[in-house]
Amino acid sequence: MIFSKAIVDTIKGIEKLNAESMTTAKTHINSLTKPLGSLGKLEDLAIQLAGITNDPLPEVSPPGIAVFAADHGITEMGVSAYPKNVTAQMVYNFLNGGAAINVFAKQIQAVLKIVDIGVAEELKHNKLEEKKVMNGTNNFALENAMNNNEVNQALQVGIETAMMLINEGAKTIIVGEMGIGNTTSASAITALITGCSVEDAVGYGTGISEHMREKKIEIITNALLVRKPNPNDPFDILSKVGGLEIAGMTGAILKAAEQKVPVIIDGFICTASALLAVLMDEKVSGYLIAGHQSQEKGHGHALSFLQKQPLLQLDLRLGEGTGAALAFPLIQAASNMMNEMATFESAGVSEKS
Amino acid sequence: MIFSKAIVDTIKGIEKLNAESMTTAKTHINSLTKPLGSLGKLEDLAIQLAGITNDPLPEVSPPGIAVFAADHGITEMGVSAYPKNVTAQMVYNFLNGGAAINVFAKQIQAVLKIVDIGVAEELKHNKLEEKKVMNGTNNFALENAMNNNEVNQALQVGIETAMMLINEGAKTIIVGEMGIGNTTSASAITALITGCSVEDAVGYGTGISEHMREKKIEIITNALLVRKPNPNDPFDILSKVGGLEIAGMTGAILKAAEQKVPVIIDGFICTASALLAVLMDEKVSGYLIAGHQSQEKGHGHALSFLQKQPLLQLDLRLGEGTGAALAFPLIQAASNMMNEMATFESAGVSEKS
Repeated sequence: MIFSKAIVDTIKGIEKLNAESMTTAKTHINSLTKPLGSLGKLEDLAIQLAGITNDPLPEVSPPGIAVFAADHGITEMGVSAYPKNVTAQMVYNFLNGGAAINVFAKQIQAVLKIVDIGVAEELKHNKLEEKKVMNGTNNFALENAMNNNEVNQALQVGIETAMMLINEGAKTIIVGEMGIGNTTSASAITALITGCSVEDAVGYGTGISEHMREKKIEIITNALLVRKPNPNDPFDILSKVGGLEIAGMTGAILKAAEQKVPVIIDGFICTASALLAVLMDEKVSGYLIAGHQSQEKGHGHALSFLQKQPLLQLDLRLGEGTGAALAFPLIQAASNMMNEMATFESAGVSEKS
Repeated sequence: MIFSKAIVDTIKGIEKLNAESMTTAKTHINSLTKPLGSLGKLEDLAIQLAGITNDPLPEVSPPGIAVFAADHGITEMGVSAYPKNVTAQMVYNFLNGGAAINVFAKQIQAVLKIVDIGVAEELKHNKLEEKKVMNGTNNFALENAMNNNEVNQALQVGIETAMMLINEGAKTIIVGEMGIGNTTSASAITALITGCSVEDAVGYGTGISEHMREKKIEIITNALLVRKPNPNDPFDILSKVGGLEIAGMTGAILKAAEQKVPVIIDGFICTASALLAVLMDEKVSGYLIAGHQSQEKGHGHALSFLQKQPLLQLDLRLGEGTGAALAFPLIQAASNMMNEMATFESAGVSEKS
């Protein structure tokens, strides 16, 4: 067994959505003062939330956001528009409240945790969750990104972070990331698991040129030929292409599912973590809500593979959990609809003739 | 002159969006700690808000919601799935806080006004804005929906309602409606102004059968042949096909634009009002934000004609302003991004290499 016991136990604890709560929720929705089905995808969402939480009148607030930050050895190959030290700089920006995720987290009154799961630089800040597994992954063009122990540790950090948020009252989990170079790992993972071509999985990241994109495709293609990750083995994939924050998000998703807490997934990198989590246990899929459709082209393949329709389509490509945080008010609205709307009977409104 | 002086004055007061504020806003967005353009449509929205409010750091809260309720004589022809008295019943549901718009208004901390602009029944409630122009429109299959005086009065009620909300502090206006039968008027208006066929403008409303839909198409087609509304004359259109709440929303949109306050438009019926307002003055278009794409098929034609991309696509078909209210957190997020995010310089983050 490669997975540590804690991870195996978490996966074993994941159950199917509760069918009875979903049926009760559907009956309740159809009694509310609105034409049948007229709240569209919000109704589907409310039913899913009922199944996740085993509560026909699900509560989703407050949300908890975990942003996992880590560096990537693959940046040595020149795959990103930004220098590697931007990862550390952005972590300080998160800790000082100046990034987009801070602004959107505040808007939805979320508990926000910034986790150093593998930033190359030493970081110090009283608000930082110091959980560094290693100083960034190894360059997976030259060697495996992580060894088995490092993969297990990174998954474990994710599990612990989700549990910490849930213990602090989070009723919805949002996972986000920061890591210069991480679209390279996410592209490799997406191509491996969905079966799309590397070319289809590689986009423009934070804004690279077409020339750089072609180079990135070549680097990933060569690395996959040399490392030969087994596309059916999520542990092997993480070990061979990384990254630490991707493993962290995967662990957080697993724990949230085990705890019957809905997870809003964010963009391309976060969805790569979701692909890994679903490969570990397909029951995870029921706990996932796709926050948005990113501009990054591989994201569409990943969402199709997961059979998830994104709530928002705003051409975002920022990460940090921003798209998931922006989608949260819709999840809140689905919950509020269930808990606060009048029924035809209670309001004395005539039903369809 | 058919339009009353108050309406002509409102239209004359509408200016183009402020180009200087939009340029300043764009420069500011590009200085914020995120990859260039990575917040996608939120960035476009922030620039539009800057142009509307003439403030590069626009504020949009609190929002004000006006729900205009009225009846339609055309319901005599059997065009709706619900009996006509549901309009009055739903108004009481709004006033008692049990409808979807109440729940979503509370979530976004909006000021909510329920306006009786033409419900057939007499209504009494201390929270109701009593502005009844007439007891529902006339059946436009048989006669004009309203006379000129009634059209002017209904537009005027809309103008006054928007001004009341703005005076109470509303920094964004959301317009919504309730009126059994009003998709019939909205379909006629959409076909007239966009030039799409009546068949393309008629959907399933609150849930009618295909047989009823065919009948609805025939009723509208015949009425347009007999009444001959001039498709270039918004006053003539309102007079001939109605409705009162549609005119109310049109007036509210005009006043918000004149006051440089952004307007979030809701679904199919609301967008018919927007078509009329833009036909009165094309500069209105800049003040409009499309909240969502409704499931009602004519809505797509109306949004294309207005060249507006909806923020949400959730298969809603409820009205009441619900889709616009659900979209509001995105407008709030665009404003928060401008006012709260750090710049590369202030946060000490390296820019793109």
